[in-house]
Amino acid sequence: MTGQWEEITGGVTAPEGFLAAGVAAGVKYKGRRDLALIVSEVPASAAGVFTTNLVKGAPVLVTMERISRGRARAIVVNSGNANTCNGEQGIVDARAMAIETARVLNIPEEDVLVASTGVIGLPLPMDRILPGIAAAARELGPDGGAAAAEAIMTTDTEPKEAAVSLILSGRRVTIGGCAKGSGMVHPSMATMLCFITTDAAVPASCLQEMLRYAVDRSFNMISVDGDTSTNDMVLALANGRAGNPEITAAGHDYYLFRDALTAVCTRLARAVAGDGEGATKLLEVKVINAPTEKDARLAARAVVSSDLVKTAIYGRDANWGRIICAAGYSGAQFDPDRVDIFLGDVPVAKNGAALPFDEEAAGQVLAGDEVKVLIDLHAGGHEATAWGCDLTEEYININAHYRT
Amino acid sequence: MTGQWEEITGGVTAPEGFLAAGVAAGVKYKGRRDLALIVSEVPASAAGVFTTNLVKGAPVLVTMERISRGRARAIVVNSGNANTCNGEQGIVDARAMAIETARVLNIPEEDVLVASTGVIGLPLPMDRILPGIAAAARELGPDGGAAAAEAIMTTDTEPKEAAVSLILSGRRVTIGGCAKGSGMVHPSMATMLCFITTDAAVPASCLQEMLRYAVDRSFNMISVDGDTSTNDMVLALANGRAGNPEITAAGHDYYLFRDALTAVCTRLARAVAGDGEGATKLLEVKVINAPTEKDARLAARAVVSSDLVKTAIYGRDANWGRIICAAGYSGAQFDPDRVDIFLGDVPVAKNGAALPFDEEAAGQVLAGDEVKVLIDLHAGGHEATAWGCDLTEEYININAHYRT
Repeated sequence: MTGQWEEITGGVTAPEGFLAAGVAAGVKYKGRRDLALIVSEVPASAAGVFTTNLVKGAPVLVTMERISRGRARAIVVNSGNANTCNGEQGIVDARAMAIETARVLNIPEEDVLVASTGVIGLPLPMDRILPGIAAAARELGPDGGAAAAEAIMTTDTEPKEAAVSLILSGRRVTIGGCAKGSGMVHPSMATMLCFITTDAAVPASCLQEMLRYAVDRSFNMISVDGDTSTNDMVLALANGRAGNPEITAAGHDYYLFRDALTAVCTRLARAVAGDGEGATKLLEVKVINAPTEKDARLAARAVVSSDLVKTAIYGRDANWGRIICAAGYSGAQFDPDRVDIFLGDVPVAKNGAALPFDEEAAGQVLAGDEVKVLIDLHAGGHEATAWGCDLTEEYININAHYRT
Repeated sequence: MTGQWEEITGGVTAPEGFLAAGVAAGVKYKGRRDLALIVSEVPASAAGVFTTNLVKGAPVLVTMERISRGRARAIVVNSGNANTCNGEQGIVDARAMAIETARVLNIPEEDVLVASTGVIGLPLPMDRILPGIAAAARELGPDGGAAAAEAIMTTDTEPKEAAVSLILSGRRVTIGGCAKGSGMVHPSMATMLCFITTDAAVPASCLQEMLRYAVDRSFNMISVDGDTSTNDMVLALANGRAGNPEITAAGHDYYLFRDALTAVCTRLARAVAGDGEGATKLLEVKVINAPTEKDARLAARAVVSSDLVKTAIYGRDANWGRIICAAGYSGAQFDPDRVDIFLGDVPVAKNGAALPFDEEAAGQVLAGDEVKVLIDLHAGGHEATAWGCDLTEEYININAHYRT
């Protein structure tokens, strides 16, 4: 995606006026970063998008309530424990994390948002979390983004950060973000945690609108295993330190910023999809010429979520039959006899039927770390892209532990 | 499920007046049964339920058209090739199978229904199929049901047959069936093929109604891998040879027969679910006290379809968190704080939170070939049961072939 922005290095501390830290509190494992703080030096607008799972973790419930204020100052996150399905104690503990964060930062409690990720049904070890929050506060710094990105990981094999820089009305504005997600990933809200910071001046309602737009085209279009987590959230803080004229709807700056925000979210979402548990390949499925956007989204998501497509990709099998089958049960409307399918640039099916194709060229596409599938429905003018990964024995190993 | 019927041995040739055969035509492999014929000695009422996948195989299109007549005499089935995504040629070949069957049996062409299962996008080897049909016709017999059940298999590890016997208005009536399905199995229509025969006298409209009822509670409640095939069908033929008074709606015999038909379909559907590709365990999930039947079905199906639940079952992991998470994204409405979960008889979660439970007892439940999960939503009075299987490395091996 091109636009008047450029990618830069860094994450949540790339924008002006943000500090972060990531420390090892010992939530589940010793000596592993598992407690992150992201703090704005000044009060900020806040927006958030949350899991649609009916079962919502305590941190999700607490944070959803606070987001409605549209203002926040800090986000406290722990990994190793999702603080979900812990009944009333879970809510109490989520609030206690916010209270302690507020105390050590000397800010109002309601300005603190809370997130947790990890195992469900185990109470938080507050005797380790509360000291961890204090330790993180002591380590806050303008270069702490990377440590924070590491501290929110669970089964991820690497931290995920992204940042872009752009000019709005003559002022340089930066958007940064970090994300985690590896298993239990599926729209909506493709589970995982994502924290976005920006020094742009954006009112909360605008930020919420743009965040929803960006999330719908990124995190809501990824799938690792079809399981939508209980703890998904994407949070954004905008602190205005860039000094740009406040962004209002339908202005030139609004669309510029929205595009850049979408690019950050897309970069992070692709990273999450490609780092799926056991994944060896990122799978990108683009559906074009669909009758409606909804049809395009349904078809793209069904294809990246199909176990049969995912195993075929792992097996480097140019199995377009499984691809068209997944599109066929997705709920998208189209005429099966008009569908063309491409693996990379190689056409493998035309008008819903087999095409003699260059096996070697297809093999090369399938051998890569990123496999791109294009599905032309020839049924309209709408498109959508979804991301996922292959399904391997490693996914089974990771998720079928305790085997006797 | 109890009722005034009893299980007996046999399959499609158990009822009076049905003949069947299964021969090796060499469709994909040599020396392996892959061509089946099921024939009624007299014209029969016919009913069918078909895949909801937008992409429908040629046999599905041809058979759907003929089923609307409500009469049929024979079903010709091949495995090894789905005859799907073969364009116009596919339709021509499906019809040619029916024409040849009609010729060798000396019956009208429109009385012949067609089914195929196997790989998508490869044209049928008609030079082997047509002689195969003639060979099958020569071998038709009243004990041919088992050979037919074998000939329709693809990745199944064993043939699946079921039959029940009951008394309707003083006459003995038999219902028999066979089914196949191992991969690409998910409602609706839980892919696979199922053929039901009965000697009961049932008008077509009644048979269709009862078949739909039975399928909704059986085949539409199973999942192996979440992929709904392009070729699913359940067909039923009723030839009246039992001499019972014709069954009409809302009579005592109607409900008796419907229960028995549902029992046959359930037995076969469970067998398909438990024989999922790579499966080592049958998973049965029952949801009770749901606000509506739809909620119960959504929750039960989401749980059996969840990759994280399936791997947990494989790993003998009493992971109720994944179970409640799946129910939570299913679309079913309920209060997460009122959910109780049982593994077999062992309560593992209460009011949506952890419960100290007998690990050894839970381990025993998980060690069995059939694992039963009960979810009490405490939100109404409706229930539903779904079946699936565990997810293992063998599923990956089977479906990610051609690995280089």
